[in-house]
Amino acid sequence: MAEEAAQEHPGPSAPRPVRCIVKLGGAAITNKGELESINEESLRSACAQLRQAMSESEGDGAPEKVLGMDWSKRHGDPADPAVDAEWIAGMAGLGLDTNFIVVHGAGSFGHFQASRSGVHKGGLHSTLVKAGFVATRISVTSLNQEIVRALAREGIPSVGMSPFTCGWSTSQRKIASANASQIIQSLHAGFVPVLHGDAVLDELLDCTILSGDVIIRHLAQLLSPKYVVFLTDVHGVYDRPPTDPNAVLLKEIARLGIDVYITKAGTEHSLRALKGDVSSDSEDWLGTVIRSSK
Amino acid sequence: MAEEAAQEHPGPSAPRPVRCIVKLGGAAITNKGELESINEESLRSACAQLRQAMSESEGDGAPEKVLGMDWSKRHGDPADPAVDAEWIAGMAGLGLDTNFIVVHGAGSFGHFQASRSGVHKGGLHSTLVKAGFVATRISVTSLNQEIVRALAREGIPSVGMSPFTCGWSTSQRKIASANASQIIQSLHAGFVPVLHGDAVLDELLDCTILSGDVIIRHLAQLLSPKYVVFLTDVHGVYDRPPTDPNAVLLKEIARLGIDVYITKAGTEHSLRALKGDVSSDSEDWLGTVIRSSK
Repeated sequence: MAEEAAQEHPGPSAPRPVRCIVKLGGAAITNKGELESINEESLRSACAQLRQAMSESEGDGAPEKVLGMDWSKRHGDPADPAVDAEWIAGMAGLGLDTNFIVVHGAGSFGHFQASRSGVHKGGLHSTLVKAGFVATRISVTSLNQEIVRALAREGIPSVGMSPFTCGWSTSQRKIASANASQIIQSLHAGFVPVLHGDAVLDELLDCTILSGDVIIRHLAQLLSPKYVVFLTDVHGVYDRPPTDPNAVLLKEIARLGIDVYITKAGTEHSLRALKGDVSSDSEDWLGTVIRSSK
Repeated sequence: MAEEAAQEHPGPSAPRPVRCIVKLGGAAITNKGELESINEESLRSACAQLRQAMSESEGDGAPEKVLGMDWSKRHGDPADPAVDAEWIAGMAGLGLDTNFIVVHGAGSFGHFQASRSGVHKGGLHSTLVKAGFVATRISVTSLNQEIVRALAREGIPSVGMSPFTCGWSTSQRKIASANASQIIQSLHAGFVPVLHGDAVLDELLDCTILSGDVIIRHLAQLLSPKYVVFLTDVHGVYDRPPTDPNAVLLKEIARLGIDVYITKAGTEHSLRALKGDVSSDSEDWLGTVIRSSK
């Protein structure tokens, strides 16, 4: 069968190793206090830094004209999008190393719907859980759509991929099935997959919530990226709540198989993290490193 | 591996046969002349008829209170959505036979992006095609999101599923891989999958467009629904362009394995088609039947 053939042959040649998996934290890209509200400036800045980190030409001097890939109308803007097809067709290439995966959290999207209905607890015989499953997916996929569009406007060839639609499922909240072949195919074709925390089917509970962090852990184990970056609204992991004036930023906390950088979105530190440019003794980098033992 | 296990075991028990696959034609649910514009009234009416066709209680007398499943903000509406969780939790069940699949066309979404870039012709080495692939997916998935929301507002537990994300791909524009296991799992869990024409990867051309009609044909062959309904902006298939005053509606055109009804959205005829209630000699039904030879 065609499906089986696709499983055996992931592509015409072995895919390149993934350079980086980026978590766009819900707290960094949405306004947490306000239902379904995007922090436009923070999102735009994170996308611009991602583009810079992908850029193959070093030296961020004169800003190039960006090949915007969102050709859709924007809400509230009656004008049709302008697309200079001739200029785009004449470009030699994107000039980007697009070998990144983006995973985002929900922030002020999805949490309201999930908590009102108890989707994470399961039980689809309940009308409330069933409705909440639908409502949660509508909310998180609308955030996904906005993030894909923001990345596309920065010229990043992003494609939205919902874990539910990918067929990912859990068994008592642990990942039971998570076929990454379409993610790998998309990377191989030069696209940046954009995944998100999602409502999924669960073998024992009927359904639950699969968080962005669990998705990242699974993908990191499966694909062994060079490094993983968590962009959040604080500088990293602290020894007590970061609102405490005595809180100390823990600059290095453990040793795992992959370098992990946790830092604040929209800062010089996040740009360095996205580039993988965090040396072990850099005093001027603010964030937390979970250093690989390799 | 977990993936292989999922392939072998589609679910705890055999799924029910699919009752109906519905095509919401792009011409019926969007305003074709205006870029990315939904025909709200036609879409709302199609969703309401779908709900009526799914309703297990016959006799469409007093309208029941609908369990709305879109709990997200609507553009331009500053109010937070109101969710009566207690009332929803107290319901015995949805009272709907949700064993339907919805596939929609693109209408005024996606066509602009696809035609400007030539995505259907393939060639991802071209920056224009790559950008057009991203732009096309943004446009068609935003329509999908609006259709899922419109169905959810009518109390239909709908889940958006992009063919690209499902891992569907083509080889020289013919379906090469189209794993339907997640669609079947979703139906089995009581959800209504909502698919759409999409930009997909192609083994030989790099990429192309997979149309809603090809998706329907594939799903009909695979799942053998009782009947298939095409809702469009004319009454059915005519012997000449339907704008011609002498055009004659062909009431029956062929014999295939499955009853297919083609009719105009938002009419009494479309409601009867969605219910599967089209007898062979009904003079008062306007539309075209492709009658099964069973």
